[in-house]
Amino acid sequence: MSDPFVIFTPSGKRGHVAAGTTVLDAARQLGVDLDSVCGGRGICSKCQVSPAFGDFPKHGITSAPDALSEWNAVEARYDEKRGLKEGRRLGCQACITGDVVLDVPPESQVHRQVVRKSADTREVVMDPATRLFYVEVEEPDMHEPSGDFERLRVALKDQWEIEGLTASPALLMRLQPVLRKGAWAVTCAVHRDGSGTARLLDIWPGYYEAPLYGLAIDLGSTTIAAHLCNLGTGAVVASAGVMNPQIRFGEDLMSRVSYAMMNEGGAAEMTRAVRDGLNTLVAGVAEEVGITPADIVEATFVANPVMHHLLLGIDPVELGQAPFALAVSEALDMAAADLELALHDEARIYVLPCIAGHVGADAAAVALSEAPDRSDDLVLIVDVGTNAELLLGDKDGVLACSSPTGPAFEGAQISAGQRAAPGAIERVEIDPATKEPRFRVIGCDLWSDDPGFAEAAGPITGICGSGIIEAIAEMRMAGIVDAGGLIGSAEQTGTVRSVPEGRTHSYVLHEGDGSSPRITVTNGDVRAIQLAKAALYAGARLLMDQRGVDTVDRVVLAGAFGAHISPKHAMVLGMIPDCEVDQVTSAGNAAGTGARIALLNVAARRGIEQTVRRIHKVETAIEPRFQEHFVAASNIPHATDPYPRLTATTPLPQVSFNTGSEGEGRRRRRRA
Amino acid sequence: MSDPFVIFTPSGKRGHVAAGTTVLDAARQLGVDLDSVCGGRGICSKCQVSPAFGDFPKHGITSAPDALSEWNAVEARYDEKRGLKEGRRLGCQACITGDVVLDVPPESQVHRQVVRKSADTREVVMDPATRLFYVEVEEPDMHEPSGDFERLRVALKDQWEIEGLTASPALLMRLQPVLRKGAWAVTCAVHRDGSGTARLLDIWPGYYEAPLYGLAIDLGSTTIAAHLCNLGTGAVVASAGVMNPQIRFGEDLMSRVSYAMMNEGGAAEMTRAVRDGLNTLVAGVAEEVGITPADIVEATFVANPVMHHLLLGIDPVELGQAPFALAVSEALDMAAADLELALHDEARIYVLPCIAGHVGADAAAVALSEAPDRSDDLVLIVDVGTNAELLLGDKDGVLACSSPTGPAFEGAQISAGQRAAPGAIERVEIDPATKEPRFRVIGCDLWSDDPGFAEAAGPITGICGSGIIEAIAEMRMAGIVDAGGLIGSAEQTGTVRSVPEGRTHSYVLHEGDGSSPRITVTNGDVRAIQLAKAALYAGARLLMDQRGVDTVDRVVLAGAFGAHISPKHAMVLGMIPDCEVDQVTSAGNAAGTGARIALLNVAARRGIEQTVRRIHKVETAIEPRFQEHFVAASNIPHATDPYPRLTATTPLPQVSFNTGSEGEGRRRRRRA
Repeated sequence: MSDPFVIFTPSGKRGHVAAGTTVLDAARQLGVDLDSVCGGRGICSKCQVSPAFGDFPKHGITSAPDALSEWNAVEARYDEKRGLKEGRRLGCQACITGDVVLDVPPESQVHRQVVRKSADTREVVMDPATRLFYVEVEEPDMHEPSGDFERLRVALKDQWEIEGLTASPALLMRLQPVLRKGAWAVTCAVHRDGSGTARLLDIWPGYYEAPLYGLAIDLGSTTIAAHLCNLGTGAVVASAGVMNPQIRFGEDLMSRVSYAMMNEGGAAEMTRAVRDGLNTLVAGVAEEVGITPADIVEATFVANPVMHHLLLGIDPVELGQAPFALAVSEALDMAAADLELALHDEARIYVLPCIAGHVGADAAAVALSEAPDRSDDLVLIVDVGTNAELLLGDKDGVLACSSPTGPAFEGAQISAGQRAAPGAIERVEIDPATKEPRFRVIGCDLWSDDPGFAEAAGPITGICGSGIIEAIAEMRMAGIVDAGGLIGSAEQTGTVRSVPEGRTHSYVLHEGDGSSPRITVTNGDVRAIQLAKAALYAGARLLMDQRGVDTVDRVVLAGAFGAHISPKHAMVLGMIPDCEVDQVTSAGNAAGTGARIALLNVAARRGIEQTVRRIHKVETAIEPRFQEHFVAASNIPHATDPYPRLTATTPLPQVSFNTGSEGEGRRRRRRA
Repeated sequence: MSDPFVIFTPSGKRGHVAAGTTVLDAARQLGVDLDSVCGGRGICSKCQVSPAFGDFPKHGITSAPDALSEWNAVEARYDEKRGLKEGRRLGCQACITGDVVLDVPPESQVHRQVVRKSADTREVVMDPATRLFYVEVEEPDMHEPSGDFERLRVALKDQWEIEGLTASPALLMRLQPVLRKGAWAVTCAVHRDGSGTARLLDIWPGYYEAPLYGLAIDLGSTTIAAHLCNLGTGAVVASAGVMNPQIRFGEDLMSRVSYAMMNEGGAAEMTRAVRDGLNTLVAGVAEEVGITPADIVEATFVANPVMHHLLLGIDPVELGQAPFALAVSEALDMAAADLELALHDEARIYVLPCIAGHVGADAAAVALSEAPDRSDDLVLIVDVGTNAELLLGDKDGVLACSSPTGPAFEGAQISAGQRAAPGAIERVEIDPATKEPRFRVIGCDLWSDDPGFAEAAGPITGICGSGIIEAIAEMRMAGIVDAGGLIGSAEQTGTVRSVPEGRTHSYVLHEGDGSSPRITVTNGDVRAIQLAKAALYAGARLLMDQRGVDTVDRVVLAGAFGAHISPKHAMVLGMIPDCEVDQVTSAGNAAGTGARIALLNVAARRGIEQTVRRIHKVETAIEPRFQEHFVAASNIPHATDPYPRLTATTPLPQVSFNTGSEGEGRRRRRRA
């Protein structure tokens, strides 16, 4: 009789194994991804499989009911004590005696794939730095004296191929009682990030099975967002965001750099503030799922360069002036204690690399998430925030820059602007015939002309970033604002909603009532958005010049704000280069996703470090053509680019409201 | 004309170099050990050489006065600003133009040899882990953005071949201002211990030349000894010792282990005490030479296993019971901050490996200092203290054990015993004919029968360890005590100094007077020394059994106490095996010397780690023959070994004072 033939699903890996081989050993022989924490001792049940019996014509085998050995005592005890799902077997106990088809359920796969929202982004396969390993350690022998730690090290090497384990003095202090309590069987949390180190992070007597947790943190100037992940399954078990407490030192990056320059100890104050804020955030997110911060053994950080330096305790003063020198640019691995973060005592921190003095670890994380370096077509990725970071590239190379858009896109510097919060106008439509607007506010699904809107929406408090973009784009499409950015008068536009305000006009979006103020889009608002979008476009255009192209194949809008921008309106405004509208997509918080990928897969860390080294950086601040591109991009959508792909589907009225006073506005813009 | 021929002394290295080659480059080409901190920029003057001119028939060359280039501007400026010794040249500036003999003075050698007292011990060549490196760092370029740290790393790699530099977050915080203050030239203290890591320990703007310091610490149960060394020259610039403050928790090791077992938090209390004591000691030794603890960038530690564990914060409870399991046995490299030691903020600690649960890092340090593994003849090394550690071996292998001698050798458990301090009897002679003693006390060079002794010596307070050994050995040689350890009566011995005391007799060493007590050696004292020396001998004998020999070629007495033991008296007592008396030498505080070697030479660290792995450990506590050897060794010198080499020069009287009551004493001894 020939050796049994075994087929594992879903991998499809197959081959002959010697009769009597355990399923776990067969999986190892055939390269099948089958988990085990206890090393085949029938304790952890991580190696569960579901045998399928019957005829499998497509595989050409028949899987007989007796293709696996009978339950043995270990399986029976496990089932009795902890319960085994119907039809499941322990892979380390069940032996293969005949041809069989074995399904490995997702929870038995070490390197299971983490589901991502968007199908066209890279896969994330579980391979976190920290995992649990159950080992049996040799007892001490006074004839062959060696330290308990050295015998633990040997056990991890022999049983798990973990080389060169190190442990902190604090862990060495705890080692001996744990080994004895576990009767020389212990579970170790070991951190290996692929750089050749293996650190003992924790140790428990016997078999320990509580999940390990990690945090992916996107440290933004305005908000800090944290995703708490189960490092076994990859699942995000909780997410939370808080305002960055540094805001009290300055709203934007440069005002914080100024604070550090003008105030002795100012940088240290801001470091203290952000670390305190992080600890509060971590405590909250842990409490939400009923764990403690001590259950969190790892965290990954992405941040712009100023936030990156302040997190590390480095004065960001050099980032405020040319040549914008980073103190340290490469990725960092350090102890959480080094950053005064109250996680597990031995928790490790991974900080993604920075790309340049203006293009931080957040942009690196976007590159990790969106993988422009793996793209077949030429993609422009725009991470829209206070500072916009841009990546342009494909498999042949990636370029990066940042552009000083200022906070207008976030609703700041806008007369009725506000942060995205309930009551803020977030969507706008203007009828091109009647010039009448309708809008939606955050927190309400109705449009303002739907019945019951007033009651459902509550007070209308202002316009958020996506709202102002839509409003101005709609005003342009309805002929209320011209290509130069001037709002026409009531006579010019044919709507009484155009009202004079000083030497210019405003457009009344909402008349206001008892509970809500009158909300208008002023010509100053239009100018603020023009400045911001021109900066953004000019950055993109510089990258395109460098690459030698006039168009891009697709555009990805990243950033929490990017998720809310309407592609068509962004293009009408000329925020982004001309492109097929359906080729403009949103990646959501791609920086946060990049942090999460780095948390869940150590190879991704080495990968992004390599990628960042290859990214070509373009410094916009000193590039003479930036100003030229900026001026041309101040028009809506653009002074010289006809935007053929946009206008093919969305014709823009040829109006001009310049009556001579426009010159004043243009001069002002140039000085900016 | 052929290329100039250059000969370097004292190394004798020689060869042709191209005309115009600098002396420093010539040294590098020929493999000559010539220092440089500034990398050949004429700043540090570490590469100074003394050219010798004239005919050198033995070398076959004539060294003409113009064999080196004229002084250049750099040399002239250096000489003007800082002064160059007569006849010296800067090796990085002077160019070789003709045949020349160049002497490299000791201070220009990186790997200079450190002078040791004893010629037959291993050389110590300077190669400390931490050295200074002057580098010029590329300025930041916003077109090729990289972190300041990454450019520093590149500079150290390109200019000094230092790979993979790492820095703590605290150092990264300090980096940018220092680089700018130094106008992109900085001096770095880099720690490389040969294990592949390179850590930035400190950084100064420009060229920095203050010496770096290291500490070699011998952490004993009773005393803590520290040697402060200049890491450039290897010189011991200060030494200091303090009592181990743990003494308040117990005099000896086992009482401290008991304290830890009996008192919740007891181990932590003792850890706190020893760390506080170390910080006090360090502050004192630094003050002595006018530096601060922050100038100390490294420390090496040797200690017995219990002290080792308590230093690390590990509860030593397992060391108090079989199988005497160490928590960690291998060498440790850690931050001084991990041990709460107030040295330089980034200072590193190296702890030598332990050999076994009873044979600690102090024994490893003795092995490093005395190098039994390199000995051609068979050497027994005895580190005499409260617990004696023994090493036996030669090039073919080394064996180790410890032996529970107890504190009798240190004057404890002796009726008139005291620590070695002024007023303690340390040397004794007894006239074999008159049976009259004379002695010397610590702090006075006169013998007690010299004129003026009483005035010079001051009060006589007791007998120290070496004094009791000499007293009993002299009593044995004078026929006052017999081979079984009984003191004879006045009738039996013929001296009125034998006085009855209970059922036994005592020998009056000093009659006492107004200022001094009467000092006697009681039969109980003889018994205590018999127990201690029998344990010591039995340990040595076990090692000899294991090795399959009956004699050793030489004996080295180590330990601060070992330095004061008279070899002949030790052998008369039978503390050590029979051997030619002139083959018994003292190594002084060999453990402390081993700590100093590990401090000054990183290769010695890797060497002793390898050696310790190869040392074969013998556990005396469970070896049945130990008891047998112990009983036979209770006699003075020995019940069965005739000590032929000793008695050939020092005949011992055949006396016996056993009148029947001796049986009681023997039974008592056996129970011990």
